[in-house]
Amino acid sequence: MYKRYWDEERETMPREKRAKLILEKIKKQLHYVYHEIPFYRDLYDRAGVKPDDVVTLEDFTTKIPVVKKSMLRESQEQHHPFGNYLGANLSPIVRIHGSSGTTGKPTFYAISQKDWDHVAEVHAMCFWAAGIRPSDRVHLATHFSLFIGSWGSLIGVEKLGATAFPIGSGETDRQLNLLWHLGNTVLISTPSYCLHMLETARHQGRDTANSPLRMGIFIGEPGAGIPATKRAIGEGWGISVADCATTSEMTPWTTNCECEERTGMHVFNDAVYTEVVSKDNPNEPVPEMTSGGLVYTHLERESQPMIRFWSGDESRMTNEPCACGRTYPRLPDGVYGRLDDMLIIRGANVYPSAVQKELLEVPGTGVEFRIVLEKKGHLDHATVQVEYNPVYYNNIPAHELPQQLDALQKAAAVKLKNATGVRFDVEVLQPETLERAISKAKRVFDHR
Amino acid sequence: MYKRYWDEERETMPREKRAKLILEKIKKQLHYVYHEIPFYRDLYDRAGVKPDDVVTLEDFTTKIPVVKKSMLRESQEQHHPFGNYLGANLSPIVRIHGSSGTTGKPTFYAISQKDWDHVAEVHAMCFWAAGIRPSDRVHLATHFSLFIGSWGSLIGVEKLGATAFPIGSGETDRQLNLLWHLGNTVLISTPSYCLHMLETARHQGRDTANSPLRMGIFIGEPGAGIPATKRAIGEGWGISVADCATTSEMTPWTTNCECEERTGMHVFNDAVYTEVVSKDNPNEPVPEMTSGGLVYTHLERESQPMIRFWSGDESRMTNEPCACGRTYPRLPDGVYGRLDDMLIIRGANVYPSAVQKELLEVPGTGVEFRIVLEKKGHLDHATVQVEYNPVYYNNIPAHELPQQLDALQKAAAVKLKNATGVRFDVEVLQPETLERAISKAKRVFDHR
Repeated sequence: MYKRYWDEERETMPREKRAKLILEKIKKQLHYVYHEIPFYRDLYDRAGVKPDDVVTLEDFTTKIPVVKKSMLRESQEQHHPFGNYLGANLSPIVRIHGSSGTTGKPTFYAISQKDWDHVAEVHAMCFWAAGIRPSDRVHLATHFSLFIGSWGSLIGVEKLGATAFPIGSGETDRQLNLLWHLGNTVLISTPSYCLHMLETARHQGRDTANSPLRMGIFIGEPGAGIPATKRAIGEGWGISVADCATTSEMTPWTTNCECEERTGMHVFNDAVYTEVVSKDNPNEPVPEMTSGGLVYTHLERESQPMIRFWSGDESRMTNEPCACGRTYPRLPDGVYGRLDDMLIIRGANVYPSAVQKELLEVPGTGVEFRIVLEKKGHLDHATVQVEYNPVYYNNIPAHELPQQLDALQKAAAVKLKNATGVRFDVEVLQPETLERAISKAKRVFDHR
Repeated sequence: MYKRYWDEERETMPREKRAKLILEKIKKQLHYVYHEIPFYRDLYDRAGVKPDDVVTLEDFTTKIPVVKKSMLRESQEQHHPFGNYLGANLSPIVRIHGSSGTTGKPTFYAISQKDWDHVAEVHAMCFWAAGIRPSDRVHLATHFSLFIGSWGSLIGVEKLGATAFPIGSGETDRQLNLLWHLGNTVLISTPSYCLHMLETARHQGRDTANSPLRMGIFIGEPGAGIPATKRAIGEGWGISVADCATTSEMTPWTTNCECEERTGMHVFNDAVYTEVVSKDNPNEPVPEMTSGGLVYTHLERESQPMIRFWSGDESRMTNEPCACGRTYPRLPDGVYGRLDDMLIIRGANVYPSAVQKELLEVPGTGVEFRIVLEKKGHLDHATVQVEYNPVYYNNIPAHELPQQLDALQKAAAVKLKNATGVRFDVEVLQPETLERAISKAKRVFDHR
């Protein structure tokens, strides 16, 4: 029998006690970044704030300005190649990775030896909570190149003591053969690549619901937190699904991760302090269970530490106890929106993830979809292309299919209109018409 | 200033003293594999040999049967998935990788925690000898998937304390941009991918001889030991070239590696005991500097240990002292032939690497070539397709080029005939006609 927690004292600590520790770590980080890192000194001097102005956690939220991705990009352009926020007096930089975008110049992440050791520990703690054990054989199907999520997951698995099979993404047919051959028990991938694997496995004639897999951890994209996607993956593979989401600037600390109770993501906030704040004002905290923007702070990182990083992700947080006994807060609905990727269609705010959620709840839809936006005259015109699910229509006589798909199209359009307030033209496509993501999916094509 | 050796006592030990240590390790391994690993017990029982029959190093060579790749493949087919040579009483298996072949079912390598720790140490020692230092930024351009060479190199770089940039192979344009942007100082790749990078960088209009790189370590294929290839890489990039070759069954122990003197590969034979034996009889040692087959033995591996593994590689060994002060033997000409890949063309033995060597020595040839074998009637017909090097013919007026290429074709045919005894039809191709390898090159097309 394995122990229940990776680090029981840490994970089940009374909240008030942990809050004190967090505050101490925050104060220490503020002094460190103000005195050693030009980027932060400039930022705080311009904002007229000093580390000692922070006496409470509330001070931290209300007084310290946020860091945005664009500021990091600008800093790296001016201070080649790691920006002026690398951090001084470092232990050696042992790894360089970058943002995963495949176009343009990535932002670079430089990680010190001390930090890399921490990364392993925190990942192991989170993956243990999600349910990985040393007896597991873990199939890592994310690309091992710039994308840091792959590397952070790998050292987490190593530290935890499970067996790692870091095969990477792509060559899906072969990958599935190896998965079955080796009897791998846990899958780590993006949700979109997992759905692609599922489809490919069905083509190979495999009984996917009886694969060797017993669980999956999903990173790199939101999606596994959306109930319908979670169900598609979970039922398709016959596995338990753990959502695990953060943002690459904060990785390799995977500090948002579901426990075995699957009650939403726990926020391991003594490693990365996580706040939910007003969407309009990052210095304004919002009450529990109010939707807002996620702001993250590295409490244990010396190299390129992010202090109040504005992730652009939308979520809500609760302190409601979890049956697992961990005393960390939770994001019960996961990360369900991108504030920065939010689409404005004829004045309405629409999240692509919300469209995904609605579509997947319409019986008969497949897993892939696209949102295509165009201008017709002065007006926005929105189309959703969605494949139908061939399994669902398996027993329908061929001559009845067109009529059924017509009904599917109408149902989806109504559902989308009700949920988003926007009228979408829905096009129902043949299965496997749309290109599959082997890494992160691109699903919005905005031609306006 | 950095120290000269990674582990001075170990690397400069008197030979006789090391021989005693090696013999002790061999005896221990023989007892371990005979008593704990069915594969070896069967093998030795069939050969009528017992661990205690080995009293000297010569006994080991003359009495212990070799292991061949086909035996491992067969064992894995019968004992799913790791064969009956995995090893008992192991510390947990932490990694699974496989042979790099992209067709068919790979052989799987399972590595224990204890072994994985050793791997890092030995790789660091070898890479230190080759000249990597903690101040280096190492560009790892090999595919991170099954191929274990990538992973072994990475943990070597990490252990050594340099900064690793494990970008993988492919997306060459982007990769070169990142190499220059980050100012990476060391390249690790296959020789063929390095040559492809060189060509691509020239296309981008880069001054390759003044790149940020200062050295390269070449793995996965022989090639960097061939003087002409070494020169093409070294002069093209303006770097120092270190050859580093072993075989995937023996990795992740990269124990054949050039030191900074570049006098051929040192054999770190207290980690992997390395013998050169008769090509026809693996139990017959050959004298120093006599060409023979390389046979390897893991002295420090508990998971899937190879005891007298017949690599199929051809080389010769010397104990001639090296100016670096290391007392390990050397393979002064690297690994220059594959006994198992040897081609028989009209009765003559021809190594593809020998063809490569000859071609590259003809002024005007480019880096890529193919050997195409066909039957014409009852006879073998051999063609070599080789690109010309556009840089070499840069200043030749266009109307003279055909004549020059004609001369090139004749010179290559004569040289190949003289060296191999086989008449090759030489076809001179336009630059960049032949497909480039992003991992290992396939250069023989045997249609007989």
